[in-house]
Amino acid sequence: MPDLNLRGGTVVTADGTFDADVAIRDGRIAAVGTTVPDDGAEAVDVRGLLVMPGFIDAHTHMDMPFGGTITADDWDSGTAAAVAGGTTTIVDFALQDEGRSLGDAIDIWQGKAFGKTHIDYGLHVAICDLTDAVKAEIPSLPERGVCTVKVFMAYKGTSLFMPDEDLFEILQISRDAGVLVMVHAENGDVIAKLQQQALARGDVDPIWHARTRPEGVEAEATARAIRLAEIAGAPLAVVHVTCADAADQIRRAHARGVTVHGETCPQYLVLSEDDLARPDFDGAKYVCSPPLRDASNQEPLWRRLHNGDLVLVGSDHCAFDFAGQKEMGRGDFTKIPNGMPGVEERAALLWTNGVRTGRISPERFVAVLSTNQAHVHGLAPRKGLIAPGAEADIVVWDPDQASTITHANRHGGNDYSPYEGHRLVGGPERVYVRGVLAFHDGEVVAPPGSGRFVPRALASPGRAVAA
Amino acid sequence: MPDLNLRGGTVVTADGTFDADVAIRDGRIAAVGTTVPDDGAEAVDVRGLLVMPGFIDAHTHMDMPFGGTITADDWDSGTAAAVAGGTTTIVDFALQDEGRSLGDAIDIWQGKAFGKTHIDYGLHVAICDLTDAVKAEIPSLPERGVCTVKVFMAYKGTSLFMPDEDLFEILQISRDAGVLVMVHAENGDVIAKLQQQALARGDVDPIWHARTRPEGVEAEATARAIRLAEIAGAPLAVVHVTCADAADQIRRAHARGVTVHGETCPQYLVLSEDDLARPDFDGAKYVCSPPLRDASNQEPLWRRLHNGDLVLVGSDHCAFDFAGQKEMGRGDFTKIPNGMPGVEERAALLWTNGVRTGRISPERFVAVLSTNQAHVHGLAPRKGLIAPGAEADIVVWDPDQASTITHANRHGGNDYSPYEGHRLVGGPERVYVRGVLAFHDGEVVAPPGSGRFVPRALASPGRAVAA
Amino acid sequence: MPDLNLRGGTVVTADGTFDADVAIRDGRIAAVGTTVPDDGAEAVDVRGLLVMPGFIDAHTHMDMPFGGTITADDWDSGTAAAVAGGTTTIVDFALQDEGRSLGDAIDIWQGKAFGKTHIDYGLHVAICDLTDAVKAEIPSLPERGVCTVKVFMAYKGTSLFMPDEDLFEILQISRDAGVLVMVHAENGDVIAKLQQQALARGDVDPIWHARTRPEGVEAEATARAIRLAEIAGAPLAVVHVTCADAADQIRRAHARGVTVHGETCPQYLVLSEDDLARPDFDGAKYVCSPPLRDASNQEPLWRRLHNGDLVLVGSDHCAFDFAGQKEMGRGDFTKIPNGMPGVEERAALLWTNGVRTGRISPERFVAVLSTNQAHVHGLAPRKGLIAPGAEADIVVWDPDQASTITHANRHGGNDYSPYEGHRLVGGPERVYVRGVLAFHDGEVVAPPGSGRFVPRALASPGRAVAA
Amino acid sequence: MPDLNLRGGTVVTADGTFDADVAIRDGRIAAVGTTVPDDGAEAVDVRGLLVMPGFIDAHTHMDMPFGGTITADDWDSGTAAAVAGGTTTIVDFALQDEGRSLGDAIDIWQGKAFGKTHIDYGLHVAICDLTDAVKAEIPSLPERGVCTVKVFMAYKGTSLFMPDEDLFEILQISRDAGVLVMVHAENGDVIAKLQQQALARGDVDPIWHARTRPEGVEAEATARAIRLAEIAGAPLAVVHVTCADAADQIRRAHARGVTVHGETCPQYLVLSEDDLARPDFDGAKYVCSPPLRDASNQEPLWRRLHNGDLVLVGSDHCAFDFAGQKEMGRGDFTKIPNGMPGVEERAALLWTNGVRTGRISPERFVAVLSTNQAHVHGLAPRKGLIAPGAEADIVVWDPDQASTITHANRHGGNDYSPYEGHRLVGGPERVYVRGVLAFHDGEVVAPPGSGRFVPRALASPGRAVAA
Repeated sequence: MPDLNLRGGTVVTADGTFDADVAIRDGRIAAVGTTVPDDGAEAVDVRGLLVMPGFIDAHTHMDMPFGGTITADDWDSGTAAAVAGGTTTIVDFALQDEGRSLGDAIDIWQGKAFGKTHIDYGLHVAICDLTDAVKAEIPSLPERGVCTVKVFMAYKGTSLFMPDEDLFEILQISRDAGVLVMVHAENGDVIAKLQQQALARGDVDPIWHARTRPEGVEAEATARAIRLAEIAGAPLAVVHVTCADAADQIRRAHARGVTVHGETCPQYLVLSEDDLARPDFDGAKYVCSPPLRDASNQEPLWRRLHNGDLVLVGSDHCAFDFAGQKEMGRGDFTKIPNGMPGVEERAALLWTNGVRTGRISPERFVAVLSTNQAHVHGLAPRKGLIAPGAEADIVVWDPDQASTITHANRHGGNDYSPYEGHRLVGGPERVYVRGVLAFHDGEVVAPPGSGRFVPRALASPGRAVAA
Repeated sequence: MPDLNLRGGTVVTADGTFDADVAIRDGRIAAVGTTVPDDGAEAVDVRGLLVMPGFIDAHTHMDMPFGGTITADDWDSGTAAAVAGGTTTIVDFALQDEGRSLGDAIDIWQGKAFGKTHIDYGLHVAICDLTDAVKAEIPSLPERGVCTVKVFMAYKGTSLFMPDEDLFEILQISRDAGVLVMVHAENGDVIAKLQQQALARGDVDPIWHARTRPEGVEAEATARAIRLAEIAGAPLAVVHVTCADAADQIRRAHARGVTVHGETCPQYLVLSEDDLARPDFDGAKYVCSPPLRDASNQEPLWRRLHNGDLVLVGSDHCAFDFAGQKEMGRGDFTKIPNGMPGVEERAALLWTNGVRTGRISPERFVAVLSTNQAHVHGLAPRKGLIAPGAEADIVVWDPDQASTITHANRHGGNDYSPYEGHRLVGGPERVYVRGVLAFHDGEVVAPPGSGRFVPRALASPGRAVAA
Repeated sequence: MPDLNLRGGTVVTADGTFDADVAIRDGRIAAVGTTVPDDGAEAVDVRGLLVMPGFIDAHTHMDMPFGGTITADDWDSGTAAAVAGGTTTIVDFALQDEGRSLGDAIDIWQGKAFGKTHIDYGLHVAICDLTDAVKAEIPSLPERGVCTVKVFMAYKGTSLFMPDEDLFEILQISRDAGVLVMVHAENGDVIAKLQQQALARGDVDPIWHARTRPEGVEAEATARAIRLAEIAGAPLAVVHVTCADAADQIRRAHARGVTVHGETCPQYLVLSEDDLARPDFDGAKYVCSPPLRDASNQEPLWRRLHNGDLVLVGSDHCAFDFAGQKEMGRGDFTKIPNGMPGVEERAALLWTNGVRTGRISPERFVAVLSTNQAHVHGLAPRKGLIAPGAEADIVVWDPDQASTITHANRHGGNDYSPYEGHRLVGGPERVYVRGVLAFHDGEVVAPPGSGRFVPRALASPGRAVAA
Repeated sequence: MPDLNLRGGTVVTADGTFDADVAIRDGRIAAVGTTVPDDGAEAVDVRGLLVMPGFIDAHTHMDMPFGGTITADDWDSGTAAAVAGGTTTIVDFALQDEGRSLGDAIDIWQGKAFGKTHIDYGLHVAICDLTDAVKAEIPSLPERGVCTVKVFMAYKGTSLFMPDEDLFEILQISRDAGVLVMVHAENGDVIAKLQQQALARGDVDPIWHARTRPEGVEAEATARAIRLAEIAGAPLAVVHVTCADAADQIRRAHARGVTVHGETCPQYLVLSEDDLARPDFDGAKYVCSPPLRDASNQEPLWRRLHNGDLVLVGSDHCAFDFAGQKEMGRGDFTKIPNGMPGVEERAALLWTNGVRTGRISPERFVAVLSTNQAHVHGLAPRKGLIAPGAEADIVVWDPDQASTITHANRHGGNDYSPYEGHRLVGGPERVYVRGVLAFHDGEVVAPPGSGRFVPRALASPGRAVAA
């Protein structure tokens, strides 16, 4: 691994922007300085470009079974897409199988990742079967490098669904174990009823995916999860917040002093329910859960990213092919696999629609994509900072790089892009993972298998994040 | 000025904590690294200590006339106290005299500071007489290095008081000029009536200072100032927020997307209205405006510092002697000069009562005392960051330094301490201003006159701050 | 005066609906019964019709000088229009002249009404000049039959405008005197600035009336008036609430336990800012203050009438001719006299758009038009109830009466109707004032001068109203 | 049944107070008049007394099995207590047995009441087993005179507990059937966990009843039930609201336009958690669900009764003996039968602590105890009004009647009073049920079996109530 000096760039961190060189030695950031010693390191000219900590995406689903099929991205194509977007670490969800341990889930997911990943990664465990053995196992997760568990309040009728009594007990156990609970907050009971009624009426098109999951089912479950966490005295992360109503539940919790970390995703900021209504079953490409919302929610979500009610932007990357996969739901929207790609587009969509429009600052962009991710998910100070000692995961960002999204220029594995035709301004000129060039000039140069597992730990799961 | 290498410390910034050396060259931070080159620089061993950006206090009143007297601290004693508390820059308020220009106020205040200040400083201008000439003058303030103006909604009957029409026009003019408006938010009309009625009844003791300025007069004015700013499309800073009710007005504004920066002060976090009720006129020592509140407001204020509703902690340092000054108000609380010292105690009170108790993180401590101050008040990236190119204003903080406040160990000029007997844990071991040792081992070593004026400018006065 | 028995109708009160006869003796309601004694009384067949307490409109401006002209309705035409809409009592605003007493204002207004009014009336006094003599005079108002005073926070630059210090003192004095303070809540300072700036830019059309009085100036002043009342410990009435934002200030006050009675007006429920933008200066017909709002406020206002956040619907009847009066503002919207007719249309607009659409119940219709008006304004139990002993002010309402508003079928005195072309369903079949037929079959039958002054008194100005 | 004329009293209704005679003929109110015809009716002198519509208590549990025992009051003793407190109609909860129909529950409860009740009554049905047959049965309930169903979100592990999917479907079915759903809103899952953990720790005393049901579990479930109703488009009633936090959920729903009727109970207004901590297992007397709260909730609840956020006060009368029943829970608080008597004390506690203290008006007292009850629960205009045609259920209330509660002067069947020693001012001098004297001078004079079943129907279950 060559030593490097990134020279002449402008460093953007969550708390400020300044001109500085960055010295990389042995895969770590050795120094940030007005100038850094030559030391025989290779000089890389990054004048005119922004130097940011590598983006972290703590919300991806690679090689995941869902509804009888498997996501279109495995760890090879999925992490190639990630690094092409400036992401140097993902945290993916290992799903517990019914009747098996959480450790098994970790093992299975390690197997999926093995030899394939182009970037570093961590694992969450999604608890699907809360046996006594699993309760006893949770406190051992940090030893496996896993400090976060996921609970689904939706998907009633599948093993993913978790009733309140289990969610509550997981919150209690996790609180004591230094483990952070993440929730998918939608009321699964109500959705199941509305879906069944819609199908019985013959309402089978993709738009009914949204109409059977109205904003209220998300706002309700968000409020409920927060209350359970509050009673348990546990911190909480609420993933993929889609609407003002749900975000307001988080805001109220903050005022009460509850520690809740809210995440939203690019699709909720730039797409809308109208996309689900596209003709010829094209709406199926936009089926994800919670669903895309009325566009009137977009400005409130941007405001909450700006003001700190929401602290994270994850991708919820969960890609399926249109052919053969999304198509499973023709004639029955409940059979459309839930999810969309986004791991590659996340940062550029946020820069284009957020920073360039003045909705959020460059510093906030770094915070929600990297620094806060590291703090909330137990990766700091190893990741998420441009700071000495941190691993040299670095994005060299060209704020003026212009492109238009089309399926052909995507790096992921599925057969369409939901952002087809979207104009982007801003993108990664090059990306380093632990000091090694991983992406450059539009090409993924890191080989499969070059990524490493990153054990994660929370000093305190309720730790304040910058916002 | 010797070059320095601070070796072995733990750097705390607003976005993370990491072990690093800091190299100081020519008064600026040259590099932050796991190790930094020797280069003949003097090595300073800071193992076991925290290295933070020098604290900024954008709310002081040195050598200020008030109610027929003058504050007990001039720029010599006042800035000596400041640096003894870890503060390396203050921004003080130059008060416009009626009939004179804002430029005159700046000149007068520069004269007060000349040759006396131990640390760097900037100036706000408090507008007291909004003539047409003054309206025309506001846009020229940035050329004078002044990017903030202050308006008092309280003090009806004095030149400080500003009616809504003027506040509103100042907001409009300042918006276009890249100037941030700061408000002292209390309803001066109501206070004047309540004071007059209290005196007429014979209610003359210091406690009536609080009773004639109930929380509602602050919450009202806070809401009003925010509305005026919202209508004007201007950002706003609300200084010395004292109670949950007022802070909630800021929180609601954030949800509406209004840019409002809220500041609170240590006295509102650790003292209370009970102190105003101390016998033998001792309550006079605790008279400041807005007044100390019921202690039930303290936890809500801490929560809002944690969650980002409030982004700044300033001191509102405004010291008077008890003898001869506070005593002017015996028999008439309205004649007690308003103000208390705090520029020295600010950081240690916040560390002791905030960080050590887990209410806020060390990173947040740095944010509200330094980094956010720099962003809000136009000092970044020159001040407020541990970053290459920034001026080497650095506090070496000993998190375990224990002491008890007593008047004898204070560095300021007035004759009592409102915090007499308060235990502190955590304090500055040494302080550098532009790379020069300014405070060490309890002694102020920077000579009077060593401080410099810092011109300030806002790229955009509505810029997002980290929180 | 003949004794009457209204037979076969359905009585609607604020708390229920039931079939009953109503016996009227000596101008008062003698009995309400499943049947009532014949006693030689004239039987009136009201089968199929609704019997309601006469509507009360505590917000009219008859024969009022404004901006150099006088309203187009004097007490003759104005109260003819009122009774034609089912209104049997108005409470009008006597305006204090600068330098004169409140008693003088009452005398002057009594003179205007003398010999002209077709219905009963009371008087508020609008305080315009708070001298020491006026302060001393307020407690004597109840002896004059006046228990309400009005304060304008808008109209800066005219004698109507009242600064906070005076509003606050009026609240204190009124609290002790059993007098209710009503406020016109708009920030006069901000409006004055915005108007002056608009004119300077050449923005002179009627739509600028709305654009120089944005919702924020109303929401701000509403919040401020409430705070002042809260600090004073006084109840408050906020008239003509136009938007959700202002109404929310009242809602929050209710949650804090503050007594605030909120009124809205039909124009804010059925017209909108779009009407102000009508071409050819037609928008001038829709100039009133506060201005008509974006139509998105209508549903929230209806909801708040339903849920009790707002308890009154008044007309704010203030009619001007288009010719010669509204036209005064061609080329300068600030010279357009502020106001619209509505005293005749109030109830029918509310029935058509509120009751028939299910937004409010018939009982709530009676409450906001009559019973609550009587309670808030000191007329109960003499007025506002179908109850023994109450004066026999009765509307016999035909719920299916259909008509279309056009200027020709209006009873008021001005030269246009802002509701031209609006369809109405529901209207008064006949109206009694103190047992005397005053309106029947579209004709006003009560002669001018038949109305009487009604002295009003508040048992307790903070008394709970039904809603 | 003798015809009666109540002469000389002051009638208090929900919308006003006036002096009037009331004529009762054939058990119904025939007329309300300044005077009423003699007609040979018996004159009853009620001068100096208040004449109000008989109180309705739509929240009682008579002769109900709970936790292996049966409430101490059957329909004889329970309704004797009711009428002794001025209550002339109760609506009791018929509990569906698992595997049986709702009709069976009604039949069983009719059997319990048969021949025993001293006053009129209606029945709710509590759904405990939502089979397809039950879903089909709900729309037939109105034919049985039942227009309300109850769902328990608490009591996990018993047949009472209802999961969200069933609650949601009940809301949908009921919406279409004109049936109102009432919820007991506490999160049963969380309570079950906390109880199990408390017992495992050895925390077995009555105070743990409150500590295992914190306010958050009620606020959460209240918010959730409201959301489910909102999504279903159904109205909702939330019974026994105990704390400000839960009440605020209702307030927010009102602002969104959701129809939610909130009830509180006297025990939450005058007792507190401190009573649960009484020594020697005496706290068991105060075990009810939701539990008594910190006393700081009392003022907010009164405010919400005043301002209309809460519209009903029911008793939740559910009496158990201390000996043999409450004692079942010695050593295990979860075995203490849940409930307290209150059907007799409800009105007098409300008058003493609410009306006499000025917290609510006499009209509001009538509204929350009678008129609103009749509107919400489908009894109007037959009950709940002093209006012609209404049944002559009348309380003659002595506002100055003074007494002290002690077990010996109670009329119910259990062996203690939770209000022992409470002073009352105000109480029923006499009570009529359908024109027949049922209570007088402290004696219940209506014989068992004199009460009748009252079929109830909702014109529209979302109908606005007065408040």
